[in-house]
Amino acid sequence: MTRKSNKRPEGQETRERIVDRALRLAAVKGLGGLSIGSLAQKLNMSKSGLFAHFGSKENLEIAVVERAGLLFFNHILPTEEDGLEGIERLWAVCENWLSFVEKGVLPGGYFFTGAFFQCAEQGGPIPRRITDIVRRWVSTLRDAVDGARSKGDFRSHVDARQTALELNGILIGVKCSYLLGHENRDSARSAILVKLATLATDEIPASAFESVKGWRDYLKSRHE
Amino acid sequence: MTRKSNKRPEGQETRERIVDRALRLAAVKGLGGLSIGSLAQKLNMSKSGLFAHFGSKENLEIAVVERAGLLFFNHILPTEEDGLEGIERLWAVCENWLSFVEKGVLPGGYFFTGAFFQCAEQGGPIPRRITDIVRRWVSTLRDAVDGARSKGDFRSHVDARQTALELNGILIGVKCSYLLGHENRDSARSAILVKLATLATDEIPASAFESVKGWRDYLKSRHE
Repeated sequence: MTRKSNKRPEGQETRERIVDRALRLAAVKGLGGLSIGSLAQKLNMSKSGLFAHFGSKENLEIAVVERAGLLFFNHILPTEEDGLEGIERLWAVCENWLSFVEKGVLPGGYFFTGAFFQCAEQGGPIPRRITDIVRRWVSTLRDAVDGARSKGDFRSHVDARQTALELNGILIGVKCSYLLGHENRDSARSAILVKLATLATDEIPASAFESVKGWRDYLKSRHE
Repeated sequence: MTRKSNKRPEGQETRERIVDRALRLAAVKGLGGLSIGSLAQKLNMSKSGLFAHFGSKENLEIAVVERAGLLFFNHILPTEEDGLEGIERLWAVCENWLSFVEKGVLPGGYFFTGAFFQCAEQGGPIPRRITDIVRRWVSTLRDAVDGARSKGDFRSHVDARQTALELNGILIGVKCSYLLGHENRDSARSAILVKLATLATDEIPASAFESVKGWRDYLKSRHE
């Protein structure tokens, strides 16, 4: 009994270590660039030993995508303790998305842009999971837009779905600019503010959207 | 002599046929999904026969990327005969980009979004070529923005580089929405018009940007 319960976590730990390493490789090279052989070599394991943990390359890939999704949502979703509502929550979600890219939480452009564009029109368990993550991300944005409307930060006629897609587009465009070596953090955030300005009610002074500093000052003033 | 000049085009023709087929496969599955074996089978050729045309898988991939780039620019660049200038040329470039996606000239999301996001931070001849194509695309947008400014369609302080990156972002965002099954052709074009409205001088009536129909009517009126 004791032996069994010791053994399990160890197998689990090895599994996690494999997924971690595979995730870092896939983030840069794509899932197509993952090879069991080179992964085993990097982890100093036998190919068959590594394989035994997953049973198939597809299962390993599924584990990698799920881990990537977990890391992504852990990074971008504000916590309950943050206690953010309305436009503040939407802003946090967008800014967390930017910082996910800027900090290279998953380096490279694969998760979840390259992966999505590449496989969106393919069938199968991996493309389906990747598309689900992007859908969930857009829903997160949409709910946050809805929240900003309910709180009276956004005008009542704002179309939450359309706005979510547009914000997603702005963010992906910024990521593309980063990868091309253009764009800076301030202009990335300004692009979001320009969009938010078109949605906000008069409750929020127009000057709040004019610069990132102005916006941060405004956010502070909401809590004074 | 005659025999030689007959032989060459034949080899050339087979090569083209291989690249065409490989391109269609790569567009959906990515370059990582290309296998010489399955390609040879699809073309009813031997692996060695197919291989002989390129000498390496990398050379085949380079040929595929170059062909994809050619198709892309042929589709999106207005011709001399179109005689488009100013904002009309910029509009045509954006609309051609949308129709490239809508018509599935290269089906799937790989060329040139998935491919770019996936490999932008990798070195090597393939990533370099893919990134070069995206750079050339953004330059095309930038030149068109410059043209719209020179023609007096855009205000003189418009930042051509920044605007090009923003338009690119809008277009990629629209492609993402398409792949998620949202968005329609009119709203995709409206997103571009909303952006153009913020850049235009008073020479262009604000009403021109309010709907796709309004815009087309305005374009017609410029030539009356």
